[in-house]
Formats: sequence, C-alpha cells, structure tokens
Amino acid sequence: MFETMRLGQKYSSKEYKEFENDLRIKLFRLQEECREHGLAVLINIAGVTGSGRGEIVNMLTSWLDPKKIQTHTFWHASEDERLRPLSWRYWQKIPAKGEFGVFVGGWYAPMMNRTISDVISLDKLYLIMNKNIEREQNLADNGYIIAKFWLHLDKEEHEKRLEKRIKEKTNIHFTPFEKERDHQYDKLVDLVSKIVPRTDRDFAPWFIIDACDDEFRNVSVANALIQTIENALAKKKAEKTNKKAEMQAIHQGSIPILSTVDLSLSLEKDVYKEKFSQLKTDLYQLTYKAYTLGISSTLVFEGMDAAGKGGSIRRLLSSVDARIARVIPISSPTDEELAHHYLWRFWRHVPLAGRVTVYDRSWYGRVLVERVEGFAKKDEWRRAYSEINSFEEELVDEKNILLKFWLHISSEEQLRRFKERENTEWKKYKITPDDWRNREKTDLYKLAANEMFMRTNTNYAAWHIIPSESKYYARIQVLEIYKKALEDKIAEIEKNIKKNNDETKLDNTVIIEDVIDLKNKKSQKNKKDKKK
Amino acid sequence: MFETMRLGQKYSSKEYKEFENDLRIKLFRLQEECREHGLAVLINIAGVTGSGRGEIVNMLTSWLDPKKIQTHTFWHASEDERLRPLSWRYWQKIPAKGEFGVFVGGWYAPMMNRTISDVISLDKLYLIMNKNIEREQNLADNGYIIAKFWLHLDKEEHEKRLEKRIKEKTNIHFTPFEKERDHQYDKLVDLVSKIVPRTDRDFAPWFIIDACDDEFRNVSVANALIQTIENALAKKKAEKTNKKAEMQAIHQGSIPILSTVDLSLSLEKDVYKEKFSQLKTDLYQLTYKAYTLGISSTLVFEGMDAAGKGGSIRRLLSSVDARIARVIPISSPTDEELAHHYLWRFWRHVPLAGRVTVYDRSWYGRVLVERVEGFAKKDEWRRAYSEINSFEEELVDEKNILLKFWLHISSEEQLRRFKERENTEWKKYKITPDDWRNREKTDLYKLAANEMFMRTNTNYAAWHIIPSESKYYARIQVLEIYKKALEDKIAEIEKNIKKNNDETKLDNTVIIEDVIDLKNKKSQKNKKDKKK
Repeated sequence: MFETMRLGQKYSSKEYKEFENDLRIKLFRLQEECREHGLAVLINIAGVTGSGRGEIVNMLTSWLDPKKIQTHTFWHASEDERLRPLSWRYWQKIPAKGEFGVFVGGWYAPMMNRTISDVISLDKLYLIMNKNIEREQNLADNGYIIAKFWLHLDKEEHEKRLEKRIKEKTNIHFTPFEKERDHQYDKLVDLVSKIVPRTDRDFAPWFIIDACDDEFRNVSVANALIQTIENALAKKKAEKTNKKAEMQAIHQGSIPILSTVDLSLSLEKDVYKEKFSQLKTDLYQLTYKAYTLGISSTLVFEGMDAAGKGGSIRRLLSSVDARIARVIPISSPTDEELAHHYLWRFWRHVPLAGRVTVYDRSWYGRVLVERVEGFAKKDEWRRAYSEINSFEEELVDEKNILLKFWLHISSEEQLRRFKERENTEWKKYKITPDDWRNREKTDLYKLAANEMFMRTNTNYAAWHIIPSESKYYARIQVLEIYKKALEDKIAEIEKNIKKNNDETKLDNTVIIEDVIDLKNKKSQKNKKDKKK
Repeated sequence: MFETMRLGQKYSSKEYKEFENDLRIKLFRLQEECREHGLAVLINIAGVTGSGRGEIVNMLTSWLDPKKIQTHTFWHASEDERLRPLSWRYWQKIPAKGEFGVFVGGWYAPMMNRTISDVISLDKLYLIMNKNIEREQNLADNGYIIAKFWLHLDKEEHEKRLEKRIKEKTNIHFTPFEKERDHQYDKLVDLVSKIVPRTDRDFAPWFIIDACDDEFRNVSVANALIQTIENALAKKKAEKTNKKAEMQAIHQGSIPILSTVDLSLSLEKDVYKEKFSQLKTDLYQLTYKAYTLGISSTLVFEGMDAAGKGGSIRRLLSSVDARIARVIPISSPTDEELAHHYLWRFWRHVPLAGRVTVYDRSWYGRVLVERVEGFAKKDEWRRAYSEINSFEEELVDEKNILLKFWLHISSEEQLRRFKERENTEWKKYKITPDDWRNREKTDLYKLAANEMFMRTNTNYAAWHIIPSESKYYARIQVLEIYKKALEDKIAEIEKNIKKNNDETKLDNTVIIEDVIDLKNKKSQKNKKDKKK
C-alpha cells in the first residue's frame, strides 16, 4: 500500500505560504457552513511516532475558530472508562452539531498498539474494526462528517526522528504500548495495511499522508479534509432536493403483539405483600453479588401513560442498595443533549460495572413519541431500530444485564387512572394536558410499539411485555424477571470464572489487565533472557 | 449530645398514616415552590449503619416528583475523582436550580470513616470541616437550601441490627472504612459529637434523628426538612422586600493598577523567534516532568478584546504535548450550566493530576462582564471575590499550578486591531458588534478589572499583568512565567519527595493509598497478633 505513495514530495517556503493562505480561508469558510447546516466534523489523526500528529492538531486549532473545535486523546483509559462498555469514552467526546472534534489516535490507534503488543489477537482486532465501522456509519447517518488520517514516515526517517527524540529526551510515551510500537515499525506498517483498506468507507474515508516533509504533510491533510467536507456538504444539499428512496415497508400483516396481552392477570394484596417481601430480600442479595462480579444492570421502562412505571420502579429500587442504583427520568432533552447525536444523552448515564441504572422512558422515544409526533423524520426513526440494537449489544457486552419492560394497560384502565390522578393531591402533578393529548393518539402509539417489539426484540435484549391492569401483578412480574436474569447471569459468570480460572478475566477489567499482562510478559521475557 | 435526645419515641401504625399523608402533601408543595423560585435543595443523609439511610432516600424519592430529585453516593472515589481536587466530585453532582439532590454520606461520612480508621488525623479532619462549611456558605449564598441529617441508633440497637445483618449476609460494605466503623461505635459517636456542633449553621443545619423506630425516624426527617425549606423560602421572600444591607464600599482611593502598566515594552522579531524556539523545547520537557509528578496546571487568560489572548494561547499549546493539554473557551453558558451554581461550569473542566487546562476567559466573567452588563446583581459579584479565592485555593491544593494572565493593551492599539480584524478574511469572525459595544464601556471594564486585581491577588494565585502592545513581548512573557512556575513547583515537589521519601505521598493519590495503608496496617496487625 505504501509503495504507491508519492514519497519525498516537498514544498518551498514560498509555495507553502501561498497554499496555506488559500487553505486556511477555505477551511474557515467550511467551518462556517458546517455550523449553518448543523453538521459535526470528526477528524481522526493517527500515525507513526514523530510524524507530527500534534502539529496537525495545532494547525487545525489555529486555523479554525477555536471555540468550535475540541481535541481529545484516548491513550490511558481512566477507571470510569474501563468500567463501562469500550466505546463509552468515545461517545462522551463526540462533537456537538456544527462543531469539529479532533480525536488524536481515535478508535484505531489503541487497538493497533495492543495488537502489536500481542495483548489482543487479530480476530479480536477484526471484531473491534467492525464495531468501529458500525459506529462510523451510525454517526455519518446522523449528520457527522468523518475523515481519518494516517500520517506516514518511511522506516529510515522514522528511525532518524526516534533517535533524535531519545537523544533529546523528548520521547514521551503515555502507555507502554506506544513505546513498544515505536520499535516495531515493520509490524506496525503491516498492521496499518491490513486495517486501512478494510475500514475505508465513503462515509468515513482514510487518507494516508506522507509526513516526511512538514509543509507537504500540512497541505495534504488540509486538502483531504476540505475535499471530505465539501463532498459531505454537496451530498447534504443533494438530499434536500432529491428525497432518499423509501425504506422497506412495515410488515402490516404481522401480529400486533399488544392485542394479544392477557390483561386479566392479577394478584391478591396479601399474596403480593408476601411475594414482594421475599423478592426484596432476594434482589438485595443478588444485586450485591452482581456488584462484586462487575455485572451491571440496565433496566428500561416503557409503556402507555399511567401504566404504573413509576410505582414499579419504586418497588424495584427499594430492593437494591441505594448506593449502587440510579434512576434516569427521560423527558425533554437539554440544549447540550439536543446538540449531540440522539444516543449521546443515554450514553452519558450508562452504568459502571456492577451498578444498576433504571431508565424511566428511554432511547425508545426515538421510535415512539418522536415517530408519532413527527419530531424524527421517517428515515431517522426507521434507521433507529438497528442503531438501537447495536447500542444495546454494546451495553450487554456479554457480561451485563439489559431488561426492557413494556407495562401495558387497557384504554379503559388508563382513563380510570387519569381521573384518579386528577383527584389525588400528590398525584396531580403526574397528569398534564399532554397526557390527554397523547391518549387521543393511542392507536398510533400502539402501532409504533408493535413495530418496535418486532424490530428490537433481540436475543441479547428481549422485550418483556407486562400485563399491568393489576399493579400488584405487574410489580411482582418485573421483580421476578429481574431476579431470574440476575441468577442466570451470575451463574454464567461464575461458571466462566471457574472454567478458565487463570486465563480468562472479566472483560470489564481488560484494559487495566492488559497493562499488567504486558508487564508480566516483559518480566518473563527478561527472566528468560537472563537464563540464557 | 446524644444523652439529651428523646430516645424510644414511637408511633402507632394509625398515627403514622395520618402524619404521612400530611407530610407528603406539604413536602410535595414545597418542591413545587422551590421549582418556582429556582431554589435547589441539598439533603445530606448520614448515620449509623442500619439506621435506615436507604429507606429515607426511598421515602423522599417516592414522595416527591422523581424527575426533580437525584440521589448520589460518595463512597468509593473513582480514579477520575482521586486525580482532581477533593471537592470536584461534589461539584459535579450538585443539584440544578429547582431540583433536590440527596447526598448519601455527603461530604461528612467519608472523612468520619477515614478518621476512625486513623487514615487522617483530627487536625486534617478539622481542616476538611472548615472547607465543608465554606462550601455550604457559598452554596447557600447562591440559592441552595441545605439540610444535614445524622440518623442515630443507641449502641444496643446498633449491635442488634448489625448482628442481624451479618447473620443474613446483608451486611454490605463498599469500602474497608465502613466495615471498620461498624465495629467502633463509641469512637464514631465521639466523633459525631465533635463534628456536628462545629458544623451546625443556620444556612446548613444539622438534625440528629433518633432512628430506633422507623416511623418516628421518617416523620422526624420529613418535619425537619419541611421546616428548613420553609425557613429558607420565608427568608427569600423577606429579602425581596427588605433589600440586603450594602456591603463595604470599593476602595476608591486605591491605585488603579492598569494605569501603571508600561505599554512601551516590546521585543524584536528575531529575538522573539530565538527565545520562542528555546522556550518551546523547555516547556515541552517541563510539562512532561510535571505530568509524571502529578502537578496539574490551570492557566487563565483574561484581558480586553483583541489583547492577543488567542495568539498567546496558541503559542503556549504548541509547547505542550497535545495529549495532555486542553483549551476551554468560555462564552455564553449552556442551559445545563445556567441551571447550576455559576462555578459549576468551571469545575466541570478542572484538569486531572498532571494535565494542563487553559481557560480562554474564565470565572472572572462574574466580576467583569456580568458586573458591567448587570447580569449579576451587586451582592452576587461582590460575594464572588471570596468565592473565587476559595475555589482557586482548592485548585492549587498545595501541589498544582494556577496562573492568571491579564493581557493589556491601550485603547488606540485595540482600535487598530479591531480594524485589522475586519480586513482579514480569517480574522473577521473574531470581531462582532458586541466587541464594538464593549469598547464603549472600556472605562467600566477597567474599573472592574482594577478591583478584581485588588481582591483576588492571593499568595497562592497571583495575577500577572502582561503589557501586550507588542505581541512578541507578551507571548514570551507568558511562556517565561509559566516556565518559572513549572521549575519552582517541580523543585518543591521533588524536594518533598526526597525529604519524606517513605512517609509522604503525593496528595492526589491519597484516597487510593489510604486503602492500601489500611490493608498494610491490618496485615501488620495480623502478623503481630499471630506472633503473640
């Protein structure tokens, strides 16, 4: 791949000055245009050590309006990051609409470094690669412009610069992986030539930049960035006039799931009290056990207004130590939330390993209220099904619990509860004109819910539809399902631990343990060398 | 202190039902009122193990509108928290205006536990206590209502409940400190009787609650909370009609610092180039050294429009590895920021140990633009001087660097630069009608700046006023001051490390090391016991 690159290209100081002036103005204007169109730009800068990644960052931040560009690095993962799904750290930092985000290293450099250090296998690398592509597709679909750069130096130049750095003691490595990588040039180049072609997409292109000459490098990066943004803007404009082709139609013939719910199920008060008391004790112990094993729980509550979500959540929380549980009520987004990808506001609250997070309404708003009320466009909510499935797969991550509850009541019961709320002092606030308006759209909500069940009922995150005409029945159902899920997951994890006692570690500690592995490996290697 | 408590008080089930109904409605109405007045309520729940802290949390969250109440716990400090000033974790979680925040343990429990485990001395405890009071005063002044609860059990009851928990295996400890505390009842009670009277203030009162009877406990907490909120609301209303007494007048006679700045200082281009190149190399190495020692740098840039803040910041950043540095441009707050204490938006970005954060404009907006434009009321910006001093003391925390630069230019130079900006393509965006409006208020800004220098020029965070008529001169000055600050701080920290090699650890690791200390102490104790 690198053989075909035009190496050794240089610019004279005068040539560069002319280019610079022109590129600077162009980029600045494009930044303005992105702001107008609410498009975010995500720039991934990776490269060989000494290739000038930092200088490119400085160039971009000095050319553009610094208030609308932020740089982020992803080398050492903090504990808060290690104890959450792998991509949580990236979601925290994605730029807001109309802004530029520069990711130094981005989501490619860490996995490259760890592959070179033999901490992760090629198979694992390919898995992460696929996840990266999926994330890029998701972002691009939601108005993000993505450009990925690899700054390249040939071996000779790389070694020359490395020696200079070591001599001048400016050879800074923030992780042991980087240090290792520097001395494995051939392995790195081989890896890049594997990764780049496989992750080069029209919505997130790679640019390999010859970085031997500073001026040539700067001009090349700026040109490629300009080209990427211009393409995206042109596409955006074209879309407006030439509407996207309609996506596949809804299965109108499929069974409407909600109409099959048996709403007659109920529970007597004394049975409820007894069961609840026992479940409370069981859940308290199980959630603590899950905490010690690092199993996080994400519990999602959806359902028609007044279906009893709040009451169920309260009983559930009284069964978990308040110190490891949180409720996230979802209502209108804040302006910071509105300025980001619609999943960002949910990523914000993803639980740490071992903790319990309850979402009172959730990301399903995208395909329910936003669909029904027209806040999301048709192609937006249709695309959301697979975006949500992918998000949930990351949440579960083979070791966490994700339960989705739909509390269901009949239209008559809803009316009765609305009236009751209006007549009870501390329930009045729960009922607003909005609720009455939504009630008129019940059929549309049911249609949306039925399609949602069909499209997001995955094997790793199934829906639980709870007949809630009887509050007692519904509450016990929720607690029993959670109890079963905890028992199963705990048994599974404990079995795994037993099975691979020494080899397998819990995934959530993988990054910190990588470092330890690396150290062990080295010290073993050193010992071997000494024996020789 | 506990002798005077009315212990053993109980309510019958019927009595409780009546109380509950009444209290629930009252609290709910108060929540509504707080929302209307934009008042935040901060509830600190601490107590003996088994006293029902979790149940109080559940009671409050179930009585109130759950969308406007959030619970937070502060037991295990994450790495992100340990690597920042002690109170960063609290500032992240303070409730927004109109909302309730329940802090389980709050900022008292962790320090109690660590005192009991002999990890911190009584002297240190008193220091932290003073900081707590200062923070509470600050919050109360800015519209926060604070209530602190200590749930108490007598020794007999405590032990009974502890035994039951151990037997039922529900005795959950999230940190080793909690476990230790449970078995040191007398020491704990002694400590509480030291802390409570010393930190009881009318703006943040303590309530000692007898928790032996669940119903009595619940009613007492609710009553005390209602009383606190009602008092605060009454005070708020009184303030509106009966304006607060004027604070002390400004020293009109004091020397206006800005008029003494020598604006003739300048630097030739070739001298500048040479110096800059050397400073760049030096700073790169020094900031890396500071990184390895955990010394964070907070650099604040203020000054009249067009004084050259952006240019200086750019040169500074090109001297630091992009992976450890960030710029935070401060403009209008987001709605999440507006909804919090005015310092919250700055606390958000406080650097981790070892990192460099540059604020392009800062919290000084409170006493500059907000004062001049009337966004902050007179008593608000006057109070801000001491709030800012206190905030900065925490940032520095005896081991970090905080530098405050004021870049100063003459009115004529400003005019020249404004015009230049209007005529340069990529500088146009820097000049807005606002800038011209601000220019008309130059004298008011200078007055505000002069008072700011006088009141916030502390020994731990001095102001550096940089004559900036010559951009070259100003840039070099900034870099030289930073270089000197880094050299001094590094020398100081290295000297300390050398001096107390074994005893003293860097403060930023204190919490994690506490745990290690505790383990060591225990294992030593065990060894001793075995020897016996």
